[in-house]
Amino acid sequence: MARKKVAILGSTGSIGTQALDVIARHPERFSVTGLAAGKNVALLAEQAGRFGARVVADATHGPEGLLRVATESDADIVLAATDGAVAFEAVFAAVDRGIDVAIANKELIVAAGELLVASARTGGAKLVPVDSEHSAIFQCLAGEDQARVRAIVLTASGGPFLRSSREEIEAATLDQALAHPTWRMGTKNTIDSATMMNKGLEIIEAGRLFEQPPERLHVVVHPQSIAHGFVVFTDGSVKGQLAAPDMRLPIGYALSYPDRLPSEAAPAAGPFQALAALGGKSQAPSLRYDFEAPDLDRFPCLNLAFQALAAGGTAPAALSAANEVAVSAFVEGKIGFYGISRLIEAVLGEVPRRDASLEAIREADRAARKAAHAYVTASETPAR
Amino acid sequence: MARKKVAILGSTGSIGTQALDVIARHPERFSVTGLAAGKNVALLAEQAGRFGARVVADATHGPEGLLRVATESDADIVLAATDGAVAFEAVFAAVDRGIDVAIANKELIVAAGELLVASARTGGAKLVPVDSEHSAIFQCLAGEDQARVRAIVLTASGGPFLRSSREEIEAATLDQALAHPTWRMGTKNTIDSATMMNKGLEIIEAGRLFEQPPERLHVVVHPQSIAHGFVVFTDGSVKGQLAAPDMRLPIGYALSYPDRLPSEAAPAAGPFQALAALGGKSQAPSLRYDFEAPDLDRFPCLNLAFQALAAGGTAPAALSAANEVAVSAFVEGKIGFYGISRLIEAVLGEVPRRDASLEAIREADRAARKAAHAYVTASETPAR
Repeated sequence: MARKKVAILGSTGSIGTQALDVIARHPERFSVTGLAAGKNVALLAEQAGRFGARVVADATHGPEGLLRVATESDADIVLAATDGAVAFEAVFAAVDRGIDVAIANKELIVAAGELLVASARTGGAKLVPVDSEHSAIFQCLAGEDQARVRAIVLTASGGPFLRSSREEIEAATLDQALAHPTWRMGTKNTIDSATMMNKGLEIIEAGRLFEQPPERLHVVVHPQSIAHGFVVFTDGSVKGQLAAPDMRLPIGYALSYPDRLPSEAAPAAGPFQALAALGGKSQAPSLRYDFEAPDLDRFPCLNLAFQALAAGGTAPAALSAANEVAVSAFVEGKIGFYGISRLIEAVLGEVPRRDASLEAIREADRAARKAAHAYVTASETPAR
Repeated sequence: MARKKVAILGSTGSIGTQALDVIARHPERFSVTGLAAGKNVALLAEQAGRFGARVVADATHGPEGLLRVATESDADIVLAATDGAVAFEAVFAAVDRGIDVAIANKELIVAAGELLVASARTGGAKLVPVDSEHSAIFQCLAGEDQARVRAIVLTASGGPFLRSSREEIEAATLDQALAHPTWRMGTKNTIDSATMMNKGLEIIEAGRLFEQPPERLHVVVHPQSIAHGFVVFTDGSVKGQLAAPDMRLPIGYALSYPDRLPSEAAPAAGPFQALAALGGKSQAPSLRYDFEAPDLDRFPCLNLAFQALAAGGTAPAALSAANEVAVSAFVEGKIGFYGISRLIEAVLGEVPRRDASLEAIREADRAARKAAHAYVTASETPAR
């Protein structure tokens, strides 16, 4: 069997390094032909040498370098694991040429998912999600007819404020917001988890990747974070996917799809261990999984995301950009916790919604950031 | 789209009537071309008239009648929903001719599953399970490579004695054993649920249908009976299927496979209802699903079934036959609750295991029943 050739955009980040970890364990299945990263040139050079990548680009090469790694490394699949908008052209160029993309770049799907899915279809490329929730849905849809999907349910850990009152959340400090119960992530993602905007952005991603309208997309709070997503079919059957909270699992699935890896981190066989190992307790006498409705009153960001998905066009891009500015402002102590959702709501009301094109999306991003910064400045300097 | 032609063996029983209920709701998708039943001739005649079945047979036609309905009704799929061994020839004849079989006859898979799976492969017929647990596994395997299965987990309600001590179970009355918490079934199935032999027989079925060895098959107790089965894959991912406890769902799936029915009993869409409706509470504020290891000491029948599957050949047939006699003897008050497992263990030790052939299976069935009756008689007349 020929090895699958992988190019990684963002190879020195969290997803990129974990992907190389998976690839290193399966040298018989994968080769690395292209690597692109930002400023960590030393690590990039080490990776390029170790994996024998032929096409390599760092931040000094800019978007052109990413484009070259994505399209000139003869890759079978491109892992899009950069943050932000820097790799947009590279990913579109890949799918235009029929190169599959394992997609870990949330901004890309949120802001430009409609265009990307259409381009992948035209180019004959597959888009395989890397996010654990979307991987769960993708796995549940294997062998199924998308026309028989009635609802998609994403699970949420609920974040650090799951049991806090609205008043307590209103007064939340940065340290409290950073105390995520399950996953260890960067600051932006952890605050997004506390506001539940992470789940809002994921709802938009699910709507784009699986081409479902907002009314078919749901969030349930699942504090144990073992079940990652469910698909409800028209016949009343529900399929769900469960896995330990380890990003190497969905990364490995995305890279090996439609196959699965033969033995990556699988729980030991044995009575009950198969399920129990998911909870990290291989001899657990029992497991308990809870599911509850999210409280849209305490977590208004979730509602804002549903509204942006319903509005479509450039609205998700504006939402995502406004959220980035709002989270930074909260981290810098310039606005309170609920200032995040208030800012986003104000920005969404201000930036006009346009139909999606890459240019319109860029413009909505710029306009949303500008409006968001103005909101923050106004919050800092109350009228005297 | 041409309607799928269905023949039903056992049309007046519980599965048969529910299948006709499903078919009646989807006249654009199914037609009924053959019906076979036992002694309820009046209902059979009514069904034949209502659905316009061309080939019809009742008990007076014997196995020949079943054979004719299965093979001469021009069916695309035969639903095998009779009890016991009466339809064995008819089902084998169907798969030999490449006719798909939706299989609800447990005895057939337990006793002759090895042969049936081989015949279906040779004949080019699909076998689709109807049992809710096996339908769950079958659904989780859609689009997956069977070589990537690491474990199969069937859920068990745990029956009425889940929280009873060994001493309490030892002294159990018939009424206590018949008090099943979740499903309403006939006497035999309800007692099998109390001993957990139902799950033992299902483990054997799963081993046959999905061609998995005993060490890859597991039972977990799940008192809520909403999740019906899980597949653990080699990459550490787990897929599970959930559904309301309504046999029309797996029947509808089996008849429409590889499609799904467009709208049968699907939960209403709406925030959280998709999952909540599974629990029968469409506005439930929260759901809780528990999973625990079964206690093989209190439920020895489970172990006996694993042993019979490991022994293979005619051992599962002997187990199933011995269990039938044992359950009858318990219902008639001739042996105690744990007399059921003691009888089966004694019979399995007595009846020699042979390689599977239809003749050897019939002989093992006869020998096991004879040995079981002798065990009951010996229990009734203690040595003086």
